[in-house]
Amino acid sequence: MHEQFNFAIEVLGTFSFAMSGSFAAMQKRLDPFGVLIIAFVTAVGGGTVRDLLLDIPVFWMHDLLTCAVIIITSIFSMIFKSLEKNIKVTLFIFDSFGLGLFTIIGIQKGLHADIHPLICIGLGTITGCFGGIIRDILLNRIPLIFRKEIYATACIVGGAIFLLLVNYTTLSYTFVQIFTILLIVAIRTFAVKYQWQIPKFYGHDHSSEM
Amino acid sequence: MHEQFNFAIEVLGTFSFAMSGSFAAMQKRLDPFGVLIIAFVTAVGGGTVRDLLLDIPVFWMHDLLTCAVIIITSIFSMIFKSLEKNIKVTLFIFDSFGLGLFTIIGIQKGLHADIHPLICIGLGTITGCFGGIIRDILLNRIPLIFRKEIYATACIVGGAIFLLLVNYTTLSYTFVQIFTILLIVAIRTFAVKYQWQIPKFYGHDHSSEM
Amino acid sequence: MHEQFNFAIEVLGTFSFAMSGSFAAMQKRLDPFGVLIIAFVTAVGGGTVRDLLLDIPVFWMHDLLTCAVIIITSIFSMIFKSLEKNIKVTLFIFDSFGLGLFTIIGIQKGLHADIHPLICIGLGTITGCFGGIIRDILLNRIPLIFRKEIYATACIVGGAIFLLLVNYTTLSYTFVQIFTILLIVAIRTFAVKYQWQIPKFYGHDHSSEM
Repeated sequence: MHEQFNFAIEVLGTFSFAMSGSFAAMQKRLDPFGVLIIAFVTAVGGGTVRDLLLDIPVFWMHDLLTCAVIIITSIFSMIFKSLEKNIKVTLFIFDSFGLGLFTIIGIQKGLHADIHPLICIGLGTITGCFGGIIRDILLNRIPLIFRKEIYATACIVGGAIFLLLVNYTTLSYTFVQIFTILLIVAIRTFAVKYQWQIPKFYGHDHSSEM
Repeated sequence: MHEQFNFAIEVLGTFSFAMSGSFAAMQKRLDPFGVLIIAFVTAVGGGTVRDLLLDIPVFWMHDLLTCAVIIITSIFSMIFKSLEKNIKVTLFIFDSFGLGLFTIIGIQKGLHADIHPLICIGLGTITGCFGGIIRDILLNRIPLIFRKEIYATACIVGGAIFLLLVNYTTLSYTFVQIFTILLIVAIRTFAVKYQWQIPKFYGHDHSSEM
Repeated sequence: MHEQFNFAIEVLGTFSFAMSGSFAAMQKRLDPFGVLIIAFVTAVGGGTVRDLLLDIPVFWMHDLLTCAVIIITSIFSMIFKSLEKNIKVTLFIFDSFGLGLFTIIGIQKGLHADIHPLICIGLGTITGCFGGIIRDILLNRIPLIFRKEIYATACIVGGAIFLLLVNYTTLSYTFVQIFTILLIVAIRTFAVKYQWQIPKFYGHDHSSEM
């Protein structure tokens, strides 16, 4: 059952990021093949970097299902697009869910490869964020990490709480997974809605700003 | 003979992309070492990502010939530059040949590593396109994939036809290789010349354009 | 003693690049977590690409010390920032030392993996330059390689002299290491101070400039 649950969050994360990538590409007026490629890169980018760092086989190289999910999601997004007005909110929600799902998958794969928990938080953050970063670089958008939003911070906080709950409580593993995924989505959503910002404790220095 | 032919298209692809990278770098007024580095990245970028994904040794790490071809091509381009007026057409032709040659090499390496043919098309597209994408990111140009040109589409179509012809016809392997390479070059050339565009079947949405 | 010296230059290089990344991120007004992430990417980026190319375990995956050095340096930089006026010079000095230290480490790791010395120079250049390139791409700055500065050239020249001195003289290995690291720092510093430029021997072509 545990295996099946992990499989389900992997498919859901792939779906979320493929959706997010497709919409971002359509906003930039790419043609259908361009939309497909951006959907693909957004969905597999973070996990690919994670697998390369861990030196394990890249997950989608022997996995037709992931490819099928991305292709179907991409076509679905293009049809869905003409019915959809409020694309910004949709894009945001799918992006947040993908972020939460992939961060937790990344941490789990790191723990499984005997990596120190602290480094696993970094690995989870990379798995969650890199797909979106590559998407933004390819689409020539302002890199996500540079916008005044809480993004990677949500991964780091959510990942740390995941490790604490797994190691120091008796809560069920599946419950902790679902809880921390929703926590990451919640942190990001509230942060954007109420314009939370992490205080910059280093001094302002107007002269050096470029 | 088959081995030698594969070797020849690898050298020709390296030459084409090193040429394309050198000219792009010279257009941006980089100094000779900068031109050399961009030539190198353009020529080996796609194949490097392919080899990392397949978890096989990165092809140029033990291959002095590839490095020599890039260095010589790069120096040759800098000398040739002062004689050349119509740089845009030259750049375009070399880029298209590199695209066709590397796409087919990428698919072959994928098949050789027992990857599913559908994923091999993706691998071929990555091998063909990534060098140019990294070049454009480093040179701060508009990413190729974002321009209104048929680029990755040519790789996907050419790759699919390559697989169909190899598996379902009795044509000689070498003939199919040459045919699909020229097909990719032709698709891209005609697409640019006659300004082909793939129809966007998703609706126009002027308000959300950024 | 030799092992310890290599360990010391690795820590010093990590410190230098983490510092350089932190300051660059603060100039762009990122929040503390953003500063930490940019510091991390700048410090480990070049070495990560090197290890992936060599197919050896990525150095920071089992190394808590590197992570600790980056986190402490990053926090230190944020506190230090409010005391510091002339940030550009500080940034430049740390960046130059990181460049020299990592170039030599990269060449050594390549030689250790039986890579041809000529390719090792490329590997050293990648180790030295890639962290800064990824930093600039993420921060949306003009890519370093594109500015009119001598940067990668310093790595190539320093790396070549390192190999010559190690193979054809009887100077102590540690002396050659220190000498070539300082040489790379010196080349870069004098180049910027006196605005050295490598002559472009290819002809000027004003019409094709974009």
